[in-house]
Amino acid sequence: MPRFKLIIAYDGKPFVGWQRQDNGLGVQEVIEGAIEAFSGEKVACYCAGRTDAGVHAYGQVAHFDLPGDWKHSRVRDALNAKIRPQPISIIAVEVVDENFHARFSATERHYEYHILNRRSPPALELGRVWWVPSTLDTSSMRDAAKMLQGKHDFSSFRAAGCQAQSPIKTLDELTVKKVGDCLIITARARSFLYHQVRNIVGTLSLVGLGKWTQENVIDALEACDRTRAGPTAPPEGLFLVGARY
Amino acid sequence: MPRFKLIIAYDGKPFVGWQRQDNGLGVQEVIEGAIEAFSGEKVACYCAGRTDAGVHAYGQVAHFDLPGDWKHSRVRDALNAKIRPQPISIIAVEVVDENFHARFSATERHYEYHILNRRSPPALELGRVWWVPSTLDTSSMRDAAKMLQGKHDFSSFRAAGCQAQSPIKTLDELTVKKVGDCLIITARARSFLYHQVRNIVGTLSLVGLGKWTQENVIDALEACDRTRAGPTAPPEGLFLVGARY
Repeated sequence: MPRFKLIIAYDGKPFVGWQRQDNGLGVQEVIEGAIEAFSGEKVACYCAGRTDAGVHAYGQVAHFDLPGDWKHSRVRDALNAKIRPQPISIIAVEVVDENFHARFSATERHYEYHILNRRSPPALELGRVWWVPSTLDTSSMRDAAKMLQGKHDFSSFRAAGCQAQSPIKTLDELTVKKVGDCLIITARARSFLYHQVRNIVGTLSLVGLGKWTQENVIDALEACDRTRAGPTAPPEGLFLVGARY
Repeated sequence: MPRFKLIIAYDGKPFVGWQRQDNGLGVQEVIEGAIEAFSGEKVACYCAGRTDAGVHAYGQVAHFDLPGDWKHSRVRDALNAKIRPQPISIIAVEVVDENFHARFSATERHYEYHILNRRSPPALELGRVWWVPSTLDTSSMRDAAKMLQGKHDFSSFRAAGCQAQSPIKTLDELTVKKVGDCLIITARARSFLYHQVRNIVGTLSLVGLGKWTQENVIDALEACDRTRAGPTAPPEGLFLVGARY
């Protein structure tokens, strides 16, 4: 049966997250509904990164199997037609090998976290940034981020309910750059713990505000205890940029 | 009496435009209401570019006079506090000379028009772009734009109801660049006719789609007749970037 790979962008605001849930609409539910609407088939759609409520995606990757002989461009156009008016867009569709799995074959997930760091509130950026009105010291955040790069036990940055077997992860990149009024924190790893990026960003914000030193960050990491690290940054600043295979 | 200059960003979507109107909420009304809410004064606020319903601003400029001895940073913070939760942000406030006039002193207005040019609909860009799914030829649009630069009688690009005394305007810049899936059309001039940028973009889109040649654009310009040029592009792709003094 042909397997289709999707690249998907969405505004996370109206959704309870990627996964189907009882308390609201999931992105998965919209896409599976759209597949059924054009093909008549009930199929399951698997993704690379199960984003939380309010988290956005530029390049979520997903796959599903569909019997029949559908052209990839026809699948893309039919899905987009059925998805409207939800703010989800199927950017690209291709037919892939049956060994491809959006979740298990991924070798890297790439996230960005956007902080609007200025006295004035967001206008055009509303719902797409974490607004921090107090000045953040980018340079000390950059130094703290460097210390979290690499392979560590990230238990201190792991939310309750995390389904990962091990708290040991390798952050291939954790960098902070300033673009205008915006701080962009880039995180890349084969896989992440539940809320790991948001918990890291919340911790880095304490450093940026001058409340925490680099030492505090190292202590928090070494404690392997969630209560020792910083708060969870809000979901609206987080974007799943893409996944590699 | 002190005169305050504002730099304002807004998402145009919920507003009937800059100006106060009976059929909905204007940006001007929100700001004048916020001034009254913190100072108790009923004042008039004048802007550089009276944007239409749905048009956005990164850097609208406005001014108003306020009796008393208000510090500029206090005015900024008080306005932002009273404006919430509307998607309008007062980015900067300064005290200016009483000869400064946001509308009459401006020597340049700078607009950008964003077209999302891909088969897949907007998701995160929704309400911030004109979505054109058919492929646009950027190079021929760029050439056509060059021909509209400079001083011309722009009657063919002037909407009914325009209050300008003369249809002769000088476009200091009209350029087209491609950034990813997005075409960004930049227009700079001392002043513009009513709907001039959107009418130019609508005409350039005909060139991009291959429906019009460069000749057709010159003919339309020379006809000095609105019915001879292309359609009006939708408001949601237009951004007032700033004004110079």
